[in-house]
Amino acid sequence: VQQAAAADVWTSISPASARRLLLGALDAFSENGYGAATTRDIATRAGLSPAGVYLHYRSKAELLYEISKLCHTAALAAVEAALESETTPVARVEAFVRASTTWHARNHKAARVIQYELRGLEGRRYREILPLRQRFEELLRREIEAGKRCGAFSAAADDAVTHAVLSLSIDVARWYRPSQDIDPELLGAIYGRLAVAMLTAGG
Amino acid sequence: VQQAAAADVWTSISPASARRLLLGALDAFSENGYGAATTRDIATRAGLSPAGVYLHYRSKAELLYEISKLCHTAALAAVEAALESETTPVARVEAFVRASTTWHARNHKAARVIQYELRGLEGRRYREILPLRQRFEELLRREIEAGKRCGAFSAAADDAVTHAVLSLSIDVARWYRPSQDIDPELLGAIYGRLAVAMLTAGG
Repeated sequence: VQQAAAADVWTSISPASARRLLLGALDAFSENGYGAATTRDIATRAGLSPAGVYLHYRSKAELLYEISKLCHTAALAAVEAALESETTPVARVEAFVRASTTWHARNHKAARVIQYELRGLEGRRYREILPLRQRFEELLRREIEAGKRCGAFSAAADDAVTHAVLSLSIDVARWYRPSQDIDPELLGAIYGRLAVAMLTAGG
Repeated sequence: VQQAAAADVWTSISPASARRLLLGALDAFSENGYGAATTRDIATRAGLSPAGVYLHYRSKAELLYEISKLCHTAALAAVEAALESETTPVARVEAFVRASTTWHARNHKAARVIQYELRGLEGRRYREILPLRQRFEELLRREIEAGKRCGAFSAAADDAVTHAVLSLSIDVARWYRPSQDIDPELLGAIYGRLAVAMLTAGG
């Protein structure tokens, strides 16, 4: 299940050589950082000749942009689906954090790239990705505000607390490895409950 | 105060040109990533000729190692001092998270380098830094266990929850910028209380 879900982001990419290039770039960027990756290394990982990247992409920067667009869109879709499954602010915040945490654990390589390597995007491309990030945060912020208005969350839950709730799932990109034997769904369930505990605690 | 405290890590470095090189490397690594940084760029930032790095350091890797050693040691000293100031597990965990958060915000450039750029260290140097990271986590884990034993923290506070408590302060390295006008001390106080709320919440 984990493997299949992780593959979902990429299955729509064709031809297969373009998909292999994106996955090769993902491995290279997440292992060594965007700055240290070379188009030669990426092509080799994709099973192509050293200049093979240029069959489908103009540059390393274009690969980063494509990965960013695909993965931000997928993460956003995951939390949007989770929000739709619940009605109260408390249940919706819990569902958001559960889905975001599970997504970041299941797609931990992609998550490392989109959380820590975005400075590799040029201004124009970064400005295309930024609204996806802003919408992700805005969805959470809106639910926290709704929970405060109905008295379910503490009035002390300000921007710093919203950042902290986001940190739970985002920092998973830094430390999570499948070898640690923590199931992504279980981790999501635990972190969803922690988020509610943070938001209901008095200031 | 912020500026002075941030400078503390570096004031012991002499001569001044070595200190300027470390600070130039810190800027280069935190802005563009270790992989994209060049010794020429670092030397220029330090006000030296293009080969100026080699006056005091053998390589970019040695600069990363020196920065890592200094900053991990400083972060560890900050949480150790905070722990000593309190006696109960609850107060000690709160003090740990408060100190760690404040340190990561105040030293956000250094924090980005030590949290996200360590793969630039070779095996031998990484093995020297790893015990400092392990001790940092172990100090928190020990207090959480003590709090569980005396019934102050939930028995459900397992490894996943310990990771979440660490994430609060570590992810500050990713998002914090002084321009956001959140005071490092205030952020630390808020996050210290959130950590206690997470640990006292039932499973």
